[in-house]
Amino acid sequence: VTPFELRSIGRVESSLKSVEAAPRQADEDAPGAWLVFEPEVREALRGLRVGQAVIVITWLDRARRDILSVHPRGDSSRPVEGVFNTRSPHRPNPIGLHEVEITAIDDLRLQVRSLEAIHGTPIVDLKPELNEDISQR
Amino acid sequence: VTPFELRSIGRVESSLKSVEAAPRQADEDAPGAWLVFEPEVREALRGLRVGQAVIVITWLDRARRDILSVHPRGDSSRPVEGVFNTRSPHRPNPIGLHEVEITAIDDLRLQVRSLEAIHGTPIVDLKPELNEDISQR
Repeated sequence: VTPFELRSIGRVESSLKSVEAAPRQADEDAPGAWLVFEPEVREALRGLRVGQAVIVITWLDRARRDILSVHPRGDSSRPVEGVFNTRSPHRPNPIGLHEVEITAIDDLRLQVRSLEAIHGTPIVDLKPELNEDISQR
Repeated sequence: VTPFELRSIGRVESSLKSVEAAPRQADEDAPGAWLVFEPEVREALRGLRVGQAVIVITWLDRARRDILSVHPRGDSSRPVEGVFNTRSPHRPNPIGLHEVEITAIDDLRLQVRSLEAIHGTPIVDLKPELNEDISQR
């Protein structure tokens, strides 16, 4: 098992301050948030614009890595499922994917709509939306 | 800058053997492939089924991490864009996202349709499709 090293390229600034307060689904009233990037990745943000849909990739640093199956949504009446078939933050590599829209840009700070990540969550990558037409890029 | 350690939980088995042969867009005739998981994550696969749309998260181990902007699609007549606004494998954390459909399951092996990752690419996570209705899980 070869390890790979991710580095934090920014952080989430959000009014969500704890895991308990975080909504369990992306569309469940998550608040807007700011993505605050490190100065050394400024060049990588070039061309991003307000209104664009992007995928924020985070490192869920409070998640457990030894949990391989869960009761979906924490409901013990539901049958246990493997974490790869759920959005549980607990998984061997606790990577978070968040589809959001950019609502404002201020230098190294991107404001986004409805992000279900708690304050301080490290950002590790940002990509154009999966289904976006990228044939012109 | 805090590093986080990812570990390989499986590998891609594909007829795509080199970066040069890989299509530049997911919908550009990528071949089917097998995702071969490590025995220690067997429990995390529980509940996955044929026909399901999933996101495979890979570690693009041949990518460069010092490239922050590129000519889109390698075309030098196009203006340079930040890598966060492109699908370039070259980026600070070379994470690959691949939306695929499961076409067969054989214990620790999942066959998927149209995967633009080359043979041997390490897998680091698997999730249900972003837009899938997961309200029942």
